Amino acid sequence: MASPHSSDTAPEQRPELFDRLSHEAVHTPSSGIIGIRTYAAGRKDVVPLWVGEGCMPTPSFICEAASQALKDGETFYTHQRGIPELREAIASYHERLYGRPFSTERFFVTGSGMQAIQIAVRIVAGPGDEIVLPSPAWPNLGAAVQVASARPVEVPLTFSPEGWHLDLDKLFAACNERTKALFINSPSNPTGWVASADQIRAILDFARERDLWIIADEIYTRFYYGEDRATAPSFYEICEDDDKILFVNSMSKNWAMTGWRVGWLSAPPALGEIIGNLIQYSTSGVAPFMQRAAVAALNDGELFVTEQIERARIGRTKLLDAFQGHNSVKYAPPMGSFYFFFGLEGVTDALPMTRKLVDEAGVGLAPGFAFGQSGSAFMRLCFATDPDQMDSAIQRLTYWLSRR
Amino acid sequence: MASPHSSDTAPEQRPELFDRLSHEAVHTPSSGIIGIRTYAAGRKDVVPLWVGEGCMPTPSFICEAASQALKDGETFYTHQRGIPELREAIASYHERLYGRPFSTERFFVTGSGMQAIQIAVRIVAGPGDEIVLPSPAWPNLGAAVQVASARPVEVPLTFSPEGWHLDLDKLFAACNERTKALFINSPSNPTGWVASADQIRAILDFARERDLWIIADEIYTRFYYGEDRATAPSFYEICEDDDKILFVNSMSKNWAMTGWRVGWLSAPPALGEIIGNLIQYSTSGVAPFMQRAAVAALNDGELFVTEQIERARIGRTKLLDAFQGHNSVKYAPPMGSFYFFFGLEGVTDALPMTRKLVDEAGVGLAPGFAFGQSGSAFMRLCFATDPDQMDSAIQRLTYWLSRR
Repeated sequence: MASPHSSDTAPEQRPELFDRLSHEAVHTPSSGIIGIRTYAAGRKDVVPLWVGEGCMPTPSFICEAASQALKDGETFYTHQRGIPELREAIASYHERLYGRPFSTERFFVTGSGMQAIQIAVRIVAGPGDEIVLPSPAWPNLGAAVQVASARPVEVPLTFSPEGWHLDLDKLFAACNERTKALFINSPSNPTGWVASADQIRAILDFARERDLWIIADEIYTRFYYGEDRATAPSFYEICEDDDKILFVNSMSKNWAMTGWRVGWLSAPPALGEIIGNLIQYSTSGVAPFMQRAAVAALNDGELFVTEQIERARIGRTKLLDAFQGHNSVKYAPPMGSFYFFFGLEGVTDALPMTRKLVDEAGVGLAPGFAFGQSGSAFMRLCFATDPDQMDSAIQRLTYWLSRR
Repeated sequence: MASPHSSDTAPEQRPELFDRLSHEAVHTPSSGIIGIRTYAAGRKDVVPLWVGEGCMPTPSFICEAASQALKDGETFYTHQRGIPELREAIASYHERLYGRPFSTERFFVTGSGMQAIQIAVRIVAGPGDEIVLPSPAWPNLGAAVQVASARPVEVPLTFSPEGWHLDLDKLFAACNERTKALFINSPSNPTGWVASADQIRAILDFARERDLWIIADEIYTRFYYGEDRATAPSFYEICEDDDKILFVNSMSKNWAMTGWRVGWLSAPPALGEIIGNLIQYSTSGVAPFMQRAAVAALNDGELFVTEQIERARIGRTKLLDAFQGHNSVKYAPPMGSFYFFFGLEGVTDALPMTRKLVDEAGVGLAPGFAFGQSGSAFMRLCFATDPDQMDSAIQRLTYWLSRR
């Protein structure tokens, strides 16, 4: 994940301090997504589409559930695996989504989807181990692997205007005796790539044969734009309960709860004690009143999720309409997630452009290098926002492009 | 930290799954504190003094600050290092406590004191490294070291009825070329041991000379029962801003916010980017509405903290009065924190007794083995609770002891 742009700000160097720090602490790169926000700090009138969140605050019925639980005094230490009511609500949610029963024992509440990733990585990998993942990828995946003293091995997707493509032969060839897991994020942040049902099946077959774990990040599975099915193909559709798959998920996107830091890990129930320990020794659980809010979201939030998905669909359509004629803009229509990942012909390093877009166009995008070397020519735009904001961003972008 | 009782429940063994997990995930022991709660699950009428929390819910003005922030829509991603207002409130709190200025840049908001520990350990230690700590100690300290692929090296305190004692020569002799840090928890959970000002000075001198980091857990510093000073001796009283000290702290104890999972890390500001990264790649920050509550607690919670301390002082006095005459009970009066760590003459393994106390006396205590081999003969009782509950627990304990 090394990059010439691994930090957007001058590093606060203190060699005599840094000499005595762990390799992992010193060498895990800063997020390039955070970097551009830091660059733009204080600038007015920037349409902020750099991070993966919309402009809607959390629905009030969810907030009120938290406030009520606070009033009820739910402020004490609680179950490290999550309160039973939330584990049940998560199981029910999966039952509705996949039309089959799920054991509550396979769901573990975490302090964010990110923490679910951190724990999943720690479960399967340690010093000297490798985890293979398609790239461009959300930087935090590879970084979490590095923090766990392991090594992320990137397998670049291939770009074409028809779509990003994962070559399974390349993915499998990247696995060796040090490989402990495949990290599959589909629908993908940032590319919008979606693994086909056949690819999901082939990856599971390969993992079973080679005794590898799969870490499945299907957070965006309901943000799917194909017309053949309602949600993206999922390992849940074909796996057994004790398959070596760790699903990471989050309340952030579906329920507009980005800031809350509540997520979950789904794993073979036999890992219960190990996962409980890893939660205990990192944050020791999630505040019970936050969990009450998550219960409300899962049980009563379906209408809101539908609206979120529709909002993203509208944003996507607006973008594709706006850029269809632009020969200088290269992109593949995203098949899932809610990001438009695009570049300009002739530009191989998009970072300076993201800064120009902040300064000259008033649009905040994430530079593609943040998602790995294979993304350097691209920029990521989050389109899960309201139609007015999308219109404004598109108008600014197209005007800026027309004057280049 | 190996122990014959490292899990209180039958392990959910699935060898074919466990074969492909990381060493850290499989070999980090379960918390013996959680274990006794699991043992007692569903039993009625147990006075629960096994964990480090009182019976008071979080004060309502703190809860209301969170609810108000939720109403104000503070539900989005926020600063990974913490919102400026909370970092300022933490700095001001330290200024009031130590009578000197503190830079807001040295404080980093974390998702619990536990997460502050996890990050502190990750900063200084990796595979093959060692961290030396006095024991008995809160089990999560050593476990966090193991999760980071490093090794905790315990230096036993010596027990006598006059007090637990740390032999500095032993502590220093335990440091070798693999040692990266000393983990000093004073006042101590579970023993109530407090490092003297001279010891604090000697430890800092040694760490400076040997270029070692200190991880200072002074969470209980205001729960100090000596008459010579208001708070326990602290590294803050003698260190420079760029000394290699990482202070971990928590909102949990002072402000009755155990369930909230909000804490902070205090470090040389030059580590800002590294700490920001480690927060980003574990939980990516703390919910902004939680941080607003923490601001309210720090700025307006002084009266409540004073009451918390007084409540603990009363509980301690009641215990010491009750057990003064009992020749069969061995303990040292705790000089700090809010735990009474005691054993019975002739009993070298107190775990069976903690179960008997649940079943026969209706009192929930934490078994000493959970805090390391050197604590096996003891049990930990949390006395930061209300006087009625303390009276009830003491009555039950003394009655049970009288019938032994």
